[in-house]
Amino acid sequence: MSILVVGSVAFDTLETPHGKRERVQGGAAFHFAMAASFFTDVRVVGVVGEDFLPEHEETLKKRGVDTTGIEHAEGKSFHWAGSYMKSLSEAETLATDLNVFGSFAPKIPASYLDSDYLFLANIDPVLQLQVRKQMPDVKLVAGDTMNYWIADHRANLEKVLAELDVLLINDGEARMLAGENNLLKAARKVMEMGPKSLVVKHGEYGATAFFCDRSFTGVSHITLPFRAPAMPLDEVVDPTGAGDCFAGGFYGYIASQPELTPAVFRKALFYGGVMGSYAVESFGTERLHTLTRDDIEQRFRTLQEISHLELEA
Amino acid sequence: MSILVVGSVAFDTLETPHGKRERVQGGAAFHFAMAASFFTDVRVVGVVGEDFLPEHEETLKKRGVDTTGIEHAEGKSFHWAGSYMKSLSEAETLATDLNVFGSFAPKIPASYLDSDYLFLANIDPVLQLQVRKQMPDVKLVAGDTMNYWIADHRANLEKVLAELDVLLINDGEARMLAGENNLLKAARKVMEMGPKSLVVKHGEYGATAFFCDRSFTGVSHITLPFRAPAMPLDEVVDPTGAGDCFAGGFYGYIASQPELTPAVFRKALFYGGVMGSYAVESFGTERLHTLTRDDIEQRFRTLQEISHLELEA
Repeated sequence: MSILVVGSVAFDTLETPHGKRERVQGGAAFHFAMAASFFTDVRVVGVVGEDFLPEHEETLKKRGVDTTGIEHAEGKSFHWAGSYMKSLSEAETLATDLNVFGSFAPKIPASYLDSDYLFLANIDPVLQLQVRKQMPDVKLVAGDTMNYWIADHRANLEKVLAELDVLLINDGEARMLAGENNLLKAARKVMEMGPKSLVVKHGEYGATAFFCDRSFTGVSHITLPFRAPAMPLDEVVDPTGAGDCFAGGFYGYIASQPELTPAVFRKALFYGGVMGSYAVESFGTERLHTLTRDDIEQRFRTLQEISHLELEA
Repeated sequence: MSILVVGSVAFDTLETPHGKRERVQGGAAFHFAMAASFFTDVRVVGVVGEDFLPEHEETLKKRGVDTTGIEHAEGKSFHWAGSYMKSLSEAETLATDLNVFGSFAPKIPASYLDSDYLFLANIDPVLQLQVRKQMPDVKLVAGDTMNYWIADHRANLEKVLAELDVLLINDGEARMLAGENNLLKAARKVMEMGPKSLVVKHGEYGATAFFCDRSFTGVSHITLPFRAPAMPLDEVVDPTGAGDCFAGGFYGYIASQPELTPAVFRKALFYGGVMGSYAVESFGTERLHTLTRDDIEQRFRTLQEISHLELEA
């Protein structure tokens, strides 16, 4: 089934210990769409400027991504510049040029209205909410956010959280959002804000999913979490977009399945780990341009092998 | 089969967000022995001062630990004072009083000489080596170390590493020892120093085991690593000794099995996670005083459940 993703389609200028790249294609919705496209149909809502050429659109089209909802505006595309010279686990932002993104008002093309799954990538919660309201009947809503919105746009963010089935954020964001250092307690607090489940990404240490079951009591109750491993990698060339590709693999797999069962959710976390691990092997989404579904299945099996303990009867 | 552990038997003064405790029983060999005692026979080699009373020895004896090798010397026992007020993941050392430990020369009692497994807990590598030389015929040698020995006692530490089947250290120590930030590359470098396998502990994110297979080529070759989860915990009361209890659970389980197979190694990592998680639930080893083997098996199953993905044919 199809996923509608709204978020940034951008250019990134990147500096990592492996080199420098000027204006490679990036943005949360772009990374997400590229990763999710290996699993299901993906439709993008976003805005780009005049520097976004047909060849850039072609990157998405080659992966079968529907770009009807990418609005072309006067001016320049969103541009982010970051450095990982101090640490591969945290980007130092050198420049954030919103450009056409500054006055973005998401419009959903008519052909997108039958989308089954909605992903609200990391953008202004006001925009996330606008999109959510235009898509009231989707089967599942998942989303992402970041420290900036948590710190300074709390009220709007809380309206988004109330709409989410799944929130995907990293450790620092979860702790910040909850105001609580203990991860399990933080997860509970975050889920009390709305999300039925919370996926916390631990970078090279994998991810933990927390589940909130309100079905019986009306009071939030946490069922057992689930921990998925990350792939130990020889080289991390560029961490940009790893979290978005994780989300794309995770949500793409879910959307490709007839039903969301606990087993599907668990496998989806492994596929998230697979796509996140491939994403960081090259600058931007370069590695995904040559990736095959076989590569994905192979790494999925490897992730299983390196974490599998035989269950006894 | 029996484990001989050499290391510190000490008193700890602890400050955590959950309170302060003066002079609780601690030390790497003490924590290790308490945890390993749930799985197999444990014999301790260490030194204590006149402040180590029969009641303190009784803590070990109640768990069936053989204390014949604990030497009683004139003066005070090793004392460490630390605070976790800034962070639960890293202790701030407030005082290290070596006392009788400063002139420790490990002597192996005759009744210990038939020990099958040797664990060199975190002490001066010179002492680790002295013990290793007195126990040339053990089936397996495992050990621990810390930043202080890595930085300032490198030459001696390298002699110990050359003797090890398994080295258990944390992320920071692995990266420091290898002078390499990438964990997989760091693991390779560390194993080239001697250890046939390396267990890197990630605190609340679990642990990764790396294996070096020299059996065919004589050249080091890394087989697939294994990632074990940690238990998400509501409360971390006192992290002191978590790594030693992890090692105790890990090595204790291995020593309890007839043969060291890949499956045994994997399960041992889970048991390490179980014992580490119980250790931090109270100050010192308090939680272990009332722990049962049933509690251990229950948490082991929980750890399996929260990380298990069905393998398909």
